[in-house]
Amino acid sequence: MIRWRPGRRADVAAVVALLADDMLGATRETADPETYLAAFDAMAAEGGNQLIVGEAIAGAATGLAAGGIVATYQITFISGLSLGAARRAQIEAVRVSAAVRGHRVGAALVANAEARARAAGCTLIQLTSNAAREDALRFYERQGFTASHVGFKRYLDRSD
Amino acid sequence: MIRWRPGRRADVAAVVALLADDMLGATRETADPETYLAAFDAMAAEGGNQLIVGEAIAGAATGLAAGGIVATYQITFISGLSLGAARRAQIEAVRVSAAVRGHRVGAALVANAEARARAAGCTLIQLTSNAAREDALRFYERQGFTASHVGFKRYLDRSD
Repeated sequence: MIRWRPGRRADVAAVVALLADDMLGATRETADPETYLAAFDAMAAEGGNQLIVGEAIAGAATGLAAGGIVATYQITFISGLSLGAARRAQIEAVRVSAAVRGHRVGAALVANAEARARAAGCTLIQLTSNAAREDALRFYERQGFTASHVGFKRYLDRSD
Repeated sequence: MIRWRPGRRADVAAVVALLADDMLGATRETADPETYLAAFDAMAAEGGNQLIVGEAIAGAATGLAAGGIVATYQITFISGLSLGAARRAQIEAVRVSAAVRGHRVGAALVANAEARARAAGCTLIQLTSNAAREDALRFYERQGFTASHVGFKRYLDRSD
């Protein structure tokens, strides 16, 4: 039903629309299109930092047009010394279109991320989810993740 | 009291010793030295993924030998589309030697990470801390971080 592939520059607008169609994203995905394209280029220039999109394929049961982007995530491979020199795969910016909810697209997304993590030699997948996303927290526990950590963020004021 | 600088290959053993001298690290930093050196090389090959060490400088009030590594952290710069195309600085593997506790080395470490994050164009610093590290959780809140997220981890069995 979904084909997962690296995102292209031409996909950026569709991905940003998915990011914005969200209880938290609605108020914060307000940068201009050129800013998002520049961020895509910066991602591409960084080793092991990939935008992945899930594209609806023909024959899908959802009634969506083939080729439409219905899910997205970002995966970053991070080597390090800790945890026995583990290489980690970090997932960010997970979104599944409301149009395909109930079709196990989220589980397929996690399986796809896991396959990419293993292929990159990672022994650990990690992600954080906003504590307000109660459904997401339950989803990740069902997918075998352990909620062992507290995720902290601190915004840096550009004007400082 | 502390000079912060990028870690070198010759610092890896001292950093691993710091990582292991910890309530959680004691049981998991058991890889062999060559594995840690290979991970250091992998970090160096990845763009924007740095090991930072804090070196005691001469005249320090701690009685430690100058040049000894008394703190460490890892900082990774991650571009992405979400949060208005924010570039993030992610901190991992934070350790401060018990020998310098009480000298505000932790606060200096966070300030150093913030300076590196700003220099790399980041608008956000993020990290996770094991929920069992109660002192660390309080420390990050005092440093202006918000505990807004739940941090999930899933280990991948190499033998799968």
